[in-house]
Amino acid sequence: MVNVGVIGATGYVGIEIVRLLQNHPGVNIVSVVSQSFVGRKISDIYPNLKNVFEMECQELDIEKISQEADILITALPHGVSKEVIPRLIEKGKRVIDHSGDFRYRSVEVYEKWYNTKHEMPELLDLAVYGLPEIYRDKIAEARIVANPGCYPTCSILGIAPLLANNLIETNNIIVDAASGVTGAGRNTELPYQFCECTENFKAYKVATHRHTSEIEQELSLIAKEEILVSFTPHLVPMKRGMLCTIYANLKYRKSTSELLKIYKDHYKSEFFVRILDEGKLPETKHVAGSNYIDIGLVVDERLNRVIVLSALDNLGKGAAGQAVQDLNIMCGLPENMGLTAPGLYL
Amino acid sequence: MVNVGVIGATGYVGIEIVRLLQNHPGVNIVSVVSQSFVGRKISDIYPNLKNVFEMECQELDIEKISQEADILITALPHGVSKEVIPRLIEKGKRVIDHSGDFRYRSVEVYEKWYNTKHEMPELLDLAVYGLPEIYRDKIAEARIVANPGCYPTCSILGIAPLLANNLIETNNIIVDAASGVTGAGRNTELPYQFCECTENFKAYKVATHRHTSEIEQELSLIAKEEILVSFTPHLVPMKRGMLCTIYANLKYRKSTSELLKIYKDHYKSEFFVRILDEGKLPETKHVAGSNYIDIGLVVDERLNRVIVLSALDNLGKGAAGQAVQDLNIMCGLPENMGLTAPGLYL
Amino acid sequence: MVNVGVIGATGYVGIEIVRLLQNHPGVNIVSVVSQSFVGRKISDIYPNLKNVFEMECQELDIEKISQEADILITALPHGVSKEVIPRLIEKGKRVIDHSGDFRYRSVEVYEKWYNTKHEMPELLDLAVYGLPEIYRDKIAEARIVANPGCYPTCSILGIAPLLANNLIETNNIIVDAASGVTGAGRNTELPYQFCECTENFKAYKVATHRHTSEIEQELSLIAKEEILVSFTPHLVPMKRGMLCTIYANLKYRKSTSELLKIYKDHYKSEFFVRILDEGKLPETKHVAGSNYIDIGLVVDERLNRVIVLSALDNLGKGAAGQAVQDLNIMCGLPENMGLTAPGLYL
Amino acid sequence: MVNVGVIGATGYVGIEIVRLLQNHPGVNIVSVVSQSFVGRKISDIYPNLKNVFEMECQELDIEKISQEADILITALPHGVSKEVIPRLIEKGKRVIDHSGDFRYRSVEVYEKWYNTKHEMPELLDLAVYGLPEIYRDKIAEARIVANPGCYPTCSILGIAPLLANNLIETNNIIVDAASGVTGAGRNTELPYQFCECTENFKAYKVATHRHTSEIEQELSLIAKEEILVSFTPHLVPMKRGMLCTIYANLKYRKSTSELLKIYKDHYKSEFFVRILDEGKLPETKHVAGSNYIDIGLVVDERLNRVIVLSALDNLGKGAAGQAVQDLNIMCGLPENMGLTAPGLYL
Repeated sequence: MVNVGVIGATGYVGIEIVRLLQNHPGVNIVSVVSQSFVGRKISDIYPNLKNVFEMECQELDIEKISQEADILITALPHGVSKEVIPRLIEKGKRVIDHSGDFRYRSVEVYEKWYNTKHEMPELLDLAVYGLPEIYRDKIAEARIVANPGCYPTCSILGIAPLLANNLIETNNIIVDAASGVTGAGRNTELPYQFCECTENFKAYKVATHRHTSEIEQELSLIAKEEILVSFTPHLVPMKRGMLCTIYANLKYRKSTSELLKIYKDHYKSEFFVRILDEGKLPETKHVAGSNYIDIGLVVDERLNRVIVLSALDNLGKGAAGQAVQDLNIMCGLPENMGLTAPGLYL
Repeated sequence: MVNVGVIGATGYVGIEIVRLLQNHPGVNIVSVVSQSFVGRKISDIYPNLKNVFEMECQELDIEKISQEADILITALPHGVSKEVIPRLIEKGKRVIDHSGDFRYRSVEVYEKWYNTKHEMPELLDLAVYGLPEIYRDKIAEARIVANPGCYPTCSILGIAPLLANNLIETNNIIVDAASGVTGAGRNTELPYQFCECTENFKAYKVATHRHTSEIEQELSLIAKEEILVSFTPHLVPMKRGMLCTIYANLKYRKSTSELLKIYKDHYKSEFFVRILDEGKLPETKHVAGSNYIDIGLVVDERLNRVIVLSALDNLGKGAAGQAVQDLNIMCGLPENMGLTAPGLYL
Repeated sequence: MVNVGVIGATGYVGIEIVRLLQNHPGVNIVSVVSQSFVGRKISDIYPNLKNVFEMECQELDIEKISQEADILITALPHGVSKEVIPRLIEKGKRVIDHSGDFRYRSVEVYEKWYNTKHEMPELLDLAVYGLPEIYRDKIAEARIVANPGCYPTCSILGIAPLLANNLIETNNIIVDAASGVTGAGRNTELPYQFCECTENFKAYKVATHRHTSEIEQELSLIAKEEILVSFTPHLVPMKRGMLCTIYANLKYRKSTSELLKIYKDHYKSEFFVRILDEGKLPETKHVAGSNYIDIGLVVDERLNRVIVLSALDNLGKGAAGQAVQDLNIMCGLPENMGLTAPGLYL
Repeated sequence: MVNVGVIGATGYVGIEIVRLLQNHPGVNIVSVVSQSFVGRKISDIYPNLKNVFEMECQELDIEKISQEADILITALPHGVSKEVIPRLIEKGKRVIDHSGDFRYRSVEVYEKWYNTKHEMPELLDLAVYGLPEIYRDKIAEARIVANPGCYPTCSILGIAPLLANNLIETNNIIVDAASGVTGAGRNTELPYQFCECTENFKAYKVATHRHTSEIEQELSLIAKEEILVSFTPHLVPMKRGMLCTIYANLKYRKSTSELLKIYKDHYKSEFFVRILDEGKLPETKHVAGSNYIDIGLVVDERLNRVIVLSALDNLGKGAAGQAVQDLNIMCGLPENMGLTAPGLYL
């Protein structure tokens, strides 16, 4: 059994990690840290867990959690990681982090898009981008796993086979994305209030969302050339779920079925990537509550353009589920352990 | 391993049974019957199950499924059971049924509320009302288990301790209930269309809902006198979840905490009944996706009246989850096997 | 033209008043006060009003608004009214207020339920409870109109004909109510966050909601005896709309159609009260966006109990619409001026 | 007063036309035709209209409605128009139609995208594409006005200023669009059932939606060259509202503010087109319930690409509202008569 501590356990990503791990046959949750709720039972904050997981929230005591846990998963508000992660690393712990801090190869790119100085550049060498479908081997050995953003996971896995097989022009990639409101976290700002969100659809952070740079970094590495993308997120009045609609111009004439074959081949060993048959398209309800990502595509032969649709649960494969997948890899456990629940649909 | 067949597998209750059983460590699903989708893979109808459960829908062939399965779970439209269940019983099979046909002790009551002749009165003796918290021992031996309605489950478990302990006047029990839209099944009638349901709240079948008679039957058995109740269902614009708000006049002065103590005591051995502490009230999101029923209560001392709130997932403890709980009991498996998932909350 | 100022114009009730009045043929909005947004155009806060109503939010300057406006409508957070209303009255202004401060005949009742000292008891004599269907004549002359709460409006109008005609027992009246989330105002607390509200249903403030006392006051006046009621509010995942399900025991045998006749007669002169025909029940989508209240009922002859269903838009007849109705009465304008929009349904 | 008949009055578009016209100061509704509900009052089907609009649904009797009405608005299921419109034209009536039948200049394009033979090619010469911002003068005189599709209205108005001013490359225009569920009409098919739609987001008809051809026709006319576009519709779990996110590569360096100036100039005389200031983006809740279209844009200077966001109410400016706008123009009434309601926001 792996002993795991969850730091930032009462946010939406944190509690989803707890929900997954409490039922994980290879893991013990040994501590849950929540500065906002020190001393209160986690089932007091999330009563769905009553009788299921009753652990008390601790304050952040690096000494204590380092003794208890082998691996720490951090789901902290931006800017707090720097207080926590260097000290955990110092204690010899391994960390799966959910901030943007360790996702970048270039400190400059990070600093430009996050508009802040990087506080721990010396730790970047220890970090691996936690997308198992690309970095599985490195994740297995990593000291720090930087769990990817939800939008990047959904975008990169949707585009990767096209770039890896040199099938598309690289100067006109457009990712039009939409997410459920849990993507904003347990956030009490006005725009996430029920009456402001429901019966509404909008784009936000057009041309400026930080995840753009994360997507570009990984696509560029796959393509072995610099890739820039348009990335436009939208907010959907639903809790869980994310869909990316990706547009790219084909270099060569390819049919929908030819491309699907390439996708199926590309992901043939990937448990959590489901390539849909021709004529089928992903829907968020098919993946909500699961760690799957569903990918479908259509070639618009009139325009010689491919439209790829990729869907995942932003709290699942887009965050907590992927963290557990990374954890399994890091610990030599079966990669899908504790993660086989299908989406709820209903 | 118990071999189970699901008849009516592509309705909302049927597919929830499939979702639960495909992950149940003590059960094999050996056949899924769906007259509407014969020959199609179930993951074709419910793509959340792609790669997870790919069995093909069969037509209803009593001979064949009787050979394959030990126990059959039927989730059929009203009126179809009579074609199916007697023949299964004849074959020596045990059945968990979701219709109203086997829930009644009195053929007359059934015929009055269902406004139809009972087609299989001779089988009633084989049937047990499948509410484990009351009939656990009989369920263990039963040939036919009549899985209770969702509203009755939520109402009866909410009221039972009051009647069992002779705490309330029996002539003024009011059950004001609300359900998510999955309660109507995979129903394409206009009132269940998205634009007709969303941003709407309404009562329906006021003073005439069939579940009234089911609630009254069971409460009368507990009280050992005839109990009549007002039961008013409402439709909530959400998928899963049910809440009953129950009003009853207390015979004696009791405080909230005294009553909660009685409830906790009454249900102290019940895994799936969670009595909330004073000051806490159930919410459907705490139980949605689980087999739990949460019960809270408040005594209004001004009026010497108790208000009990009970919440469950109408597809979980209100239908499929309870069916699996019954199945476990019938097969001598741990009662919570395959049913320990907490509610999703998000 | 009546010159009206709206104080607290950027809350949900305030902005609904603005939306109604900007299109009212007998009214000029002369000032909008919002302490949070002084100097910003109201269409900047609510962009639906761009090009429609562009007035700038002012700070609260009693001197200035008293010169500009004949009547002031106040939709202020609890506790702020006392700074504002006495000074407006001193200036000779008439006020329509949305707080609880002027709704009570008894300072004691107010102080008990609001758990605070009443700050302006000397003004109570000037105040009229702003329910036109009961107090039309007094509203016409009133200095202060205390606009009723949304739940009381929906409950009182639903029950009034029963009490006025001495048809029910007065010791077992139960009001089970449900409201959309706008009822909580423009409120950024966690329970009103999208992900906490959507796909959820819950009761709140069971046996303790302040509106109980307001309902009881008015019902007692109608019945000419002290009436106590059970009142249980619930939160529905929708924006606008309120439904009350009211239970009362009949003193005499009456059929549904007999009672409906009494209701139709009772409200025969009321433009905004629609009594539904037998067999029809109100739904919130039929009234959302309008000033109508729809009332239907069913007699449960088994129990000799009537179940009354009343539905309104909590922002319409439950707040802003009723304020405009009161305003029309106060100014001698046709009572439905500016208020004839039907519900949206869609 | 103009006498208007609405044919197909009980679908979602039809009833929205009724809702708008019953309050229109220059229009009498003289007949409402609904084959499904002949003889029933329209307020029986849509109880929001009780006491507001009580007219009885007629069957389709061309003779009768031609005597009663000057102008007919048809909101019929695809394929029914051909039985109706030629006969109305023969009777000398003017028609505003909501089908695709009269939107095309080329019979071939229509037949290819609709995969059917055009039944009334001889009437095409009488038809004008009912987008007032482009064809106002012709609409004023037209015998047949073909009210544009909702997606085309939202897309064309969003892109027009770019093409009219020769600002973008014409080979890479992408329209990523999303609509509320009323866009599917009063449709009882399974995919529009509440439980299938809510908490879900999906694309549909990728690269094949008929509106593509309508968008292309109009953009080509503006650009004076053949324009092909990628158009991808998505379904949002909300009732009303549509957002288009439009991507185009700029020919020349332009800033966001420069482009906004061009847009404001282009639409400076258009009452219903609101160009948002820099930094603001449209949201569907700002236009839902109104006839406005809100347009905002952002230039992504890194990519020299503009992202235009346009939002409207698919039942408003996308259908019924625009029909009334056309009607006003056809009858010489003020173009915004009966259409000045702002969006509801809440």
